[in-house]
Amino acid sequence: MPRRKSLVTGGAGFIGSHLVDALIDRGDDVTVVDNFRTGRSEFINQKAKLVSHDIGDVEFLRESFEGIDDVYHLAANADVRNGWDDPRRDFDLNLSKTLSVAELSAAAGVENFIFSSTGSIYGESVMVPTPENSSIQQQTSLYGASKYSCESFLGAYAEANKFKVTVLRFVSVLGPRYTHGYVYDFIQKLSADPSRLNVLGDGTQTKSYMHVSDCVNAITDLRGPSNFEVFNIGRAETITIRRSIELISECLKISPELLFGSSPRGWIGDNPIILLDITKAKSLGWNPVVSIEDSILDTAKWIIKNPWVFKDV
Amino acid sequence: MPRRKSLVTGGAGFIGSHLVDALIDRGDDVTVVDNFRTGRSEFINQKAKLVSHDIGDVEFLRESFEGIDDVYHLAANADVRNGWDDPRRDFDLNLSKTLSVAELSAAAGVENFIFSSTGSIYGESVMVPTPENSSIQQQTSLYGASKYSCESFLGAYAEANKFKVTVLRFVSVLGPRYTHGYVYDFIQKLSADPSRLNVLGDGTQTKSYMHVSDCVNAITDLRGPSNFEVFNIGRAETITIRRSIELISECLKISPELLFGSSPRGWIGDNPIILLDITKAKSLGWNPVVSIEDSILDTAKWIIKNPWVFKDV
Repeated sequence: MPRRKSLVTGGAGFIGSHLVDALIDRGDDVTVVDNFRTGRSEFINQKAKLVSHDIGDVEFLRESFEGIDDVYHLAANADVRNGWDDPRRDFDLNLSKTLSVAELSAAAGVENFIFSSTGSIYGESVMVPTPENSSIQQQTSLYGASKYSCESFLGAYAEANKFKVTVLRFVSVLGPRYTHGYVYDFIQKLSADPSRLNVLGDGTQTKSYMHVSDCVNAITDLRGPSNFEVFNIGRAETITIRRSIELISECLKISPELLFGSSPRGWIGDNPIILLDITKAKSLGWNPVVSIEDSILDTAKWIIKNPWVFKDV
Repeated sequence: MPRRKSLVTGGAGFIGSHLVDALIDRGDDVTVVDNFRTGRSEFINQKAKLVSHDIGDVEFLRESFEGIDDVYHLAANADVRNGWDDPRRDFDLNLSKTLSVAELSAAAGVENFIFSSTGSIYGESVMVPTPENSSIQQQTSLYGASKYSCESFLGAYAEANKFKVTVLRFVSVLGPRYTHGYVYDFIQKLSADPSRLNVLGDGTQTKSYMHVSDCVNAITDLRGPSNFEVFNIGRAETITIRRSIELISECLKISPELLFGSSPRGWIGDNPIILLDITKAKSLGWNPVVSIEDSILDTAKWIIKNPWVFKDV
C-alpha cells in the first residue's frame, strides 16, 4: 500500500495522540491540527507535522488539507456533563467546527473522513445492548445532540459523494494520557481528600468502557463497503460506577467513604445504562482485547505516575 | 382557557401566515417575528404584533419573548434542493437560528416550543409508510440534516425541562400563499413557456402533499403527554410528479411536452418515495380532510390569480 497522507484533528489530545502514534508506526505521513484547548504538547509524536491552529479557521487550514487521503476528525469538546453551563459550546466546538473540517476535506478531495462519535447519541435506548440501526427517540444532552448532528451533516456529505464517511460511536475510552472524565475526576478528588468521595448519581449507573489501544485499532482499521458506515465501538461488558471507584481506591491504597446521590442519573442527560452491540465491528475483524477492569487500573496507574496532568497547561 | 400569548417565527411566510390567522381567530395574542427574507408583508394578519427582525439577534428579541406561552418556530430556509450551492446555508438559517430561538424561549420561561420539521429527515426510509419511531440511517440532504439536528438539540432542551417540545414532521404543504417548491416552479415555467416543461427526475418520484389548512390544524392542536413529542403530519396517500403536472396543466388549460430526466431522484438528496405513517397524530384526533389532488388544484388556482408572487419582493 502506498504511504497514506493522514490528518488528525485533536492529535494532541488523549485518543488523538495515540492514533497519531499508531498511524506513524504503520508508515503514514501524518499532519496534526490542534488548538491546544485541551490537547497537550507532551503527547505529540515528534514525527508528525504540527499545525497549531483552530480547526474553525477554514482559510488558514486550506493548504494543510491539500493532498490528504484520510481525515481523522477527533477534535471536540469532550465534556458531556456540563453542557448547560454554556448552551452554545457543544454547538460551536463540536458541530460548527466539524462542518469546517468537512468543507476543507471536500474541497481537498479527501477520500476518507473518519469521525469520532459517541454512544451517548442513543440517549436512553430501549434496546440494550444497542445496535447501530436502533431507533433513536430523543437526544438527552447537548453533547449528544451536537455529535448526532455531526453524523447527520456527514450523512449528507456522503450522499453527495464528497468523501466516504466512517462514524465510530465510542463508549468512554480509558488508558494512558487520559485527562478528563470519571476516572480522572475521581483520582483528582481522592488525591486531594483520600477520606471521602462525593459521587454524582446513586452509583448504580452501568457503563461500558474501553482501552484506548482497542479504540485506536478500530479507528485505523475499520472501513465498510458503503459511502456512509456507522460502527459501535466498545466492549460487550459493563461496570458500575461503584465498582470503578473500588478499583481506583485499591490502586491508590485508600478506603474512602463514598457519598452517593439519590438518582440513577449523575446529571441531566446522563444515561443510566450504556452498552453497545459491537457485532458489526467484530464481523469485520475488530476485536477489543483489554478488559474494563484492566483499562481502569491502567488509567489510574498512569495518572498516579503523571500527577502533572492535574495542573492547568 | 385564558388568552394564550403566542409568538410565530416566520409568521409572514406561507405556513406561518396561515397559522397566525388561525391563532388570532381562536383568540390568541400573537407576535410575529419575520426578517422578510422570503416572507411577504401582504400575508401578515393586521391584528398581529409585528417584529421585523432576524431571529438570530438574541439580544434584540429578548423583550419580544417576555411573557410568551407558546413559541411556534417556523422560520427556516425551506429550499431542500439547492443546499450544495452554499453548504453553510441550512446550518446557519435552520440550525443556528433555531438554537437562538430555543435560548430565547428557555430564558423567557416559554411553556411550549412547537417546531416545524420535515419528512425529509427519514432519508431513504426502509419502512413505507414511515412511522415516527423508525430507525433513521442517514441524512441525505443538508436541509434534512439541519432539521434533524434541530430536533436533536430540542430533545436536549426538553430533557433539561427548559420547555415542552412538539416536533411536527411535515410532508410538502400546498395551498394559497404557496411561494416555493414543485408546484410553484412548474407554474412559473409553464407560464413562461406553455409548450414544454423540463422535469427533474424521471417523473416516477412518489410524494405525499397536504393542504395548509390541515397542516395548521395540526400545529395549533396537536400536543402529547411527554416533554418531547414527535408527530408525522401528512396524508395517507401519494401522487407521482407526473400526475401533479397533469393536474397543473389542466388548470392552466395547456398540453405541454414533458421532458423527464433519467433518474428516480430529482436532485442529490431527493427521496424517491415520501409517505409518512400518520397513525399517531390521528389517534389524538387530528385528521387531514383535503385530498392531494384538491390541494394541487387549490394551489394552482391561487397562483394563477396572484401572478405577483413571481416577482421578487
